[in-house]
Amino acid sequence: MSDFTRDDLLEKARAAHDSAVRLRRYQEKDRRNAILAIKDALIASRADILKANEKDIVAARRHDLSEAMIDRLTLTESRLRSLADALQTIAESQPVLGRIDEQHTRADGLIVQKKRIPLGVIGVIFESRPNVLIDCTALAIKSGNAILLKGGSDAAHSNAILGQLVQGAMAPFIPRESVQVIPSGDRQLTMEMVKLVGLIDLIIPRGGEGLIRMIQEHARIPVIAHAKGLCHLYIHADAPLDKARAIALNAKVQRPSVCNAIETMLVHEQHAGAYLSDLLRALTEAGVRLRVDEKIWQLGPESGWEKAVAEDWDTEYLDKILSVRLVASEDEAIDHILQHGSHHTEAIVCQDQGVIQKFEDALDSSCLAINASTRFNDGGELGLGAEIGISTTKLHAYGPMGARELTTTRFVVQGTGHCRS
Amino acid sequence: MSDFTRDDLLEKARAAHDSAVRLRRYQEKDRRNAILAIKDALIASRADILKANEKDIVAARRHDLSEAMIDRLTLTESRLRSLADALQTIAESQPVLGRIDEQHTRADGLIVQKKRIPLGVIGVIFESRPNVLIDCTALAIKSGNAILLKGGSDAAHSNAILGQLVQGAMAPFIPRESVQVIPSGDRQLTMEMVKLVGLIDLIIPRGGEGLIRMIQEHARIPVIAHAKGLCHLYIHADAPLDKARAIALNAKVQRPSVCNAIETMLVHEQHAGAYLSDLLRALTEAGVRLRVDEKIWQLGPESGWEKAVAEDWDTEYLDKILSVRLVASEDEAIDHILQHGSHHTEAIVCQDQGVIQKFEDALDSSCLAINASTRFNDGGELGLGAEIGISTTKLHAYGPMGARELTTTRFVVQGTGHCRS
Repeated sequence: MSDFTRDDLLEKARAAHDSAVRLRRYQEKDRRNAILAIKDALIASRADILKANEKDIVAARRHDLSEAMIDRLTLTESRLRSLADALQTIAESQPVLGRIDEQHTRADGLIVQKKRIPLGVIGVIFESRPNVLIDCTALAIKSGNAILLKGGSDAAHSNAILGQLVQGAMAPFIPRESVQVIPSGDRQLTMEMVKLVGLIDLIIPRGGEGLIRMIQEHARIPVIAHAKGLCHLYIHADAPLDKARAIALNAKVQRPSVCNAIETMLVHEQHAGAYLSDLLRALTEAGVRLRVDEKIWQLGPESGWEKAVAEDWDTEYLDKILSVRLVASEDEAIDHILQHGSHHTEAIVCQDQGVIQKFEDALDSSCLAINASTRFNDGGELGLGAEIGISTTKLHAYGPMGARELTTTRFVVQGTGHCRS
Repeated sequence: MSDFTRDDLLEKARAAHDSAVRLRRYQEKDRRNAILAIKDALIASRADILKANEKDIVAARRHDLSEAMIDRLTLTESRLRSLADALQTIAESQPVLGRIDEQHTRADGLIVQKKRIPLGVIGVIFESRPNVLIDCTALAIKSGNAILLKGGSDAAHSNAILGQLVQGAMAPFIPRESVQVIPSGDRQLTMEMVKLVGLIDLIIPRGGEGLIRMIQEHARIPVIAHAKGLCHLYIHADAPLDKARAIALNAKVQRPSVCNAIETMLVHEQHAGAYLSDLLRALTEAGVRLRVDEKIWQLGPESGWEKAVAEDWDTEYLDKILSVRLVASEDEAIDHILQHGSHHTEAIVCQDQGVIQKFEDALDSSCLAINASTRFNDGGELGLGAEIGISTTKLHAYGPMGARELTTTRFVVQGTGHCRS
């Protein structure tokens, strides 16, 4: 695998590029059949896949990778079944290509349409999790794009077998060259890949901050990536305690290491008393360490509390730690989020529709959760089947990216000999 | 004006940025009223505007600017009236903000919506044409964005009066700080402006290739720009001569210097004979010099013809010159466009719906004109009222950009205490 050279990379990129042109002539039913065939192959070959994955896990243990890393690397029967379900959802979802987003007819009879077409070739660079290969391939096929996938060397065996399986399964329906798997190699090859202007149209890196920063620095191709998630939960004066507590626990505790978990909770000061005590106790009992502001500190302090310092409000803990602040109004909550937020996901628990509307209007985060947990900001949960990545910039896409986000719109005008006057 | 420093630029950018946050709380009727007030002010102050513009024209003549440049710089009563009409169209057009692009309700009752929000602060860097200031301001207001405008020094007087007029007219409805006009200064300031990450969200350069290339090299903010337009017209075997001739003339001759004029005409070889002679004669009589392929050359040569050389197929003449090639089929036309095109605009004159569909499926240009002139690929013609720019890359926007292209979508999920399981 170390024999894979820059020339080999170029050859695969050119094959993907040529294939992207041919892909435009295929139909939705071909794309659907290809995705369903991959799903069937995934189930049929699960024993072989798990065997290959086991080799990666053995190697990972030999290299003393952390248990968290090994968990990300690991495929299981049930994870393969979830993957198969995601493929089914993507295959059956509404077509994104050929859709007419807008249409009008001018007074002179010229018909103006805005229609969706693929971007071309998507390059995905990912670490560890081999299921990313399947999710991204399915979304690329659905959206009529070719895809170049470069995984991490930790998952080399898993990625190799999944790549072969995908290409074999799709071949009866759409060109197998439209999915290209780059054998996991050194970072140098990644840096070459992100410079292939004219062959790749968009780079989506999925991995740690280090990988993303390095790619953003070296890329000549547009990159859509994901920065930090410093998510907030605001509990308004009229919020019922049971709902606020359930959402706070879900948003902080269910999976603290992910970007859509909350890091700061803002509570209306009207709740300073039994309501707040109950809420905070539920969190500490769930193992959450609290960093509380001065006002709350005065009400306690209780065990599991620490005094928040200035930098707490700007910290993405990614751990069972939560900063908590009392606010005098929704305006103070909004100002806090505007100052400290990362535009990722913010939740509000509130009954007053006017306050909810104000919260929505004032904040430009990629996802707002109204009387719901921030944890719903996820491609699978939001109905995309899976996500090819998450964008924290507003250009092109904002939030989880599904098949639709791998397309663009163009104008098609239809006349009967129309000329411009 | 030469006193305008980097600190002044920063101050204006910060004012725009702060204003963008406040803008999110305004309503469609405020935006509509602001645009209509600018329209009224434009008409009411036309004498003063033309007087200021005259100063720029006098200075331009003193500096020996070309007549084409002076024409771009010049405002007239009728141009002001067209501008006013564009403002009316933008003000009255469908709101782009708050629109729900997609919505579904999950089985558990969670409502998932995709809603449009502004990008934030748009930076527009433009040359000569002062009307750009008005068009871009109106589109920014419509889409809820703040805007930073930096024009060329040629139009300094015109831009100054238009900037004052805009801010004065809009002030009763939305914050005047949301439109900031940078006094025309040196290019150094432009290079500073495109590095203001965190204050400006998107840069749109409008001007010559030199300006655009320089900005793309220096920018740290995303840039959406416009590359070359090597547009094609394909005349199929079944195309009626009268329509083909009218479209060819319109697409080449009406305004040869613009990006949506055609540079190459591909004609089905079935037309080699009287049809082709008539078509080519109409073009030469309109002053077009033809660069014809070998097969056509054998049919003549006639006066006004030259033999095309290889590089002709890759040349954007921006002049009354047209390369012409005979093709054996629509497939050959498509292959030619795929090889030589710039993904800008391609037209087909054809009656066969199957051939039209094949043309559409195979080509990924930003605009296709079916039995219509390529000249329709223009924001005004396509119903956007005006365009803030044209994108020749597929990311975020493709083709003319109106108010909608200055927005993004984000998820809003609404529950009743929903948590993720």
